[in-house]
Amino acid sequence: MPVFVVEDSTQGNQTFATLNEGLGKVLRFGAYAPEVLERLHWMQEVLGPALGRAIRHLGSVDVRAIMAQALQMGDECHNRNKAATSLFVRQVGAALVETSTSSVETAAVLRFMAENDHFHLNPSMAAAKAITLAGADVPRSSVVVTMARNGVDFGIRVSGLGNRWFVGPAQYIQGLYFAGYGQEDANPDIGDSAITETSGVGAFAMAGAPAIVQFIGGTPADALRYTREMYEITVTSNPLFGLPALDFQGVPTGIDVRKVCRLHRPPVINTGIAHRLPGVGQVGAGIVHPPMECFEEALKALAAEKKEQ
Amino acid sequence: MPVFVVEDSTQGNQTFATLNEGLGKVLRFGAYAPEVLERLHWMQEVLGPALGRAIRHLGSVDVRAIMAQALQMGDECHNRNKAATSLFVRQVGAALVETSTSSVETAAVLRFMAENDHFHLNPSMAAAKAITLAGADVPRSSVVVTMARNGVDFGIRVSGLGNRWFVGPAQYIQGLYFAGYGQEDANPDIGDSAITETSGVGAFAMAGAPAIVQFIGGTPADALRYTREMYEITVTSNPLFGLPALDFQGVPTGIDVRKVCRLHRPPVINTGIAHRLPGVGQVGAGIVHPPMECFEEALKALAAEKKEQ
Repeated sequence: MPVFVVEDSTQGNQTFATLNEGLGKVLRFGAYAPEVLERLHWMQEVLGPALGRAIRHLGSVDVRAIMAQALQMGDECHNRNKAATSLFVRQVGAALVETSTSSVETAAVLRFMAENDHFHLNPSMAAAKAITLAGADVPRSSVVVTMARNGVDFGIRVSGLGNRWFVGPAQYIQGLYFAGYGQEDANPDIGDSAITETSGVGAFAMAGAPAIVQFIGGTPADALRYTREMYEITVTSNPLFGLPALDFQGVPTGIDVRKVCRLHRPPVINTGIAHRLPGVGQVGAGIVHPPMECFEEALKALAAEKKEQ
Repeated sequence: MPVFVVEDSTQGNQTFATLNEGLGKVLRFGAYAPEVLERLHWMQEVLGPALGRAIRHLGSVDVRAIMAQALQMGDECHNRNKAATSLFVRQVGAALVETSTSSVETAAVLRFMAENDHFHLNPSMAAAKAITLAGADVPRSSVVVTMARNGVDFGIRVSGLGNRWFVGPAQYIQGLYFAGYGQEDANPDIGDSAITETSGVGAFAMAGAPAIVQFIGGTPADALRYTREMYEITVTSNPLFGLPALDFQGVPTGIDVRKVCRLHRPPVINTGIAHRLPGVGQVGAGIVHPPMECFEEALKALAAEKKEQ
């Protein structure tokens, strides 16, 4: 299975992500029909190798730079990836042609990425993982370094608490459904994409992505408010990811378990809605929160660790 | 010389624009060194024909749709064209490969567009011309349908006043200079690109392009203010060009000579700064206004026409 490899040249970490299949009937949202598997085979046999040749030819692609630009172009790098995808295609286009082994395949690769506004979500997720890894395993740190959900549970991990998971029930997503679907079709929150919010983008950067409300619901004022609220539960802002709408202030970064509990304000997450039945796939997108239990349990664990010292 | 042809399928008008050479030392800003001419020859012999084949293969490219999306992605379609350029490249990429006669040339075409954030300015200008043409020659209309400058004079034409030009002195641009240049190098306002503002985009849409202040100066709050002020001197807003930052309100469209004179508020224009000496090219970008004389003379002409009736 081809994957993107993202390298953090400062910390030396490598992180990985598969290639994005698109919306709707896709494996990562539980669909596995023949056409889903056929697409995955094509991705393995054609798309992956073609991108591999192009990116090796370029040396690398600066994912952080693409994300920084995309955050100034209406993306929040989780549920809106139109700018990052366009910038990525623009950047690799010539190299795809120069390393092509078949013009029919190169055209198909360019068309596949042209038709999937979310193609760059996956390298952004790997980059988000690299960002959070850089903050992992700091003794006594109360910063959240992982948020992930499996459709039943929502779990977080905290920098100063190693690999322990703090878990609560996965919630339902409030959002917009694709044509033909509604709330009764929804599965609770699922997936590992909330690594984007954990790193400071996604819903945390929504002030830079007001047009996203057409996809997930709400108003541009909500988008601004979500980002502003997240400054109150984070430890810093990331100057590399400036938001023009907030005078280029960096995105709120580093969710602090203590602040979440003190304000009783869980992080906000933009995400896709999976159908509750296997085989259907993604049926919408919206806003969700982790359950407060995760943070309350983590806070108790931090306090217990402190006592032991 | 290859040109983009933009067609207004409702009115039947065709408008035209050359292909964008990039920033700096380029013919349209007065540079004509051997490398400038060499680039123009390449554009004529390779770039133009390649895009011609690709666009004919696609049937057409929907310039209005690209502009509408770009206005939600931080462009204002005059001095910031990064999103529109990226969307355009993404849209024509596969067709360029499918109609390629040389992979070396196709790679060069993709690289040229990848390296020029302003490549889509020119189709946007042609589309702006098509928009304003649709409002031309309406009897007694006080709406401005052309604004253009030649480095000495600034001229406007008004819908109800036919082909008469109303002229005043071209102003100096307030903005940011490229490295090594300053105010003493600047020529007064020059070029026909103000057709973008005449049609409702450019500085009129700056609320959607807060990141542009890095290129032209000012703050994101200025960008919002410019758009808001333009609603007061225009007759309508264009619902096809919604601005997320203003709750998807359409861009202010149709400069009304009467409102400009009543409020003594000339339109605002984002534009490039040409060096005052021939051969140097573009040395910066910023904000400029037409002289009030244009509007005052046009208003007198409208009043005189009314008297005659």
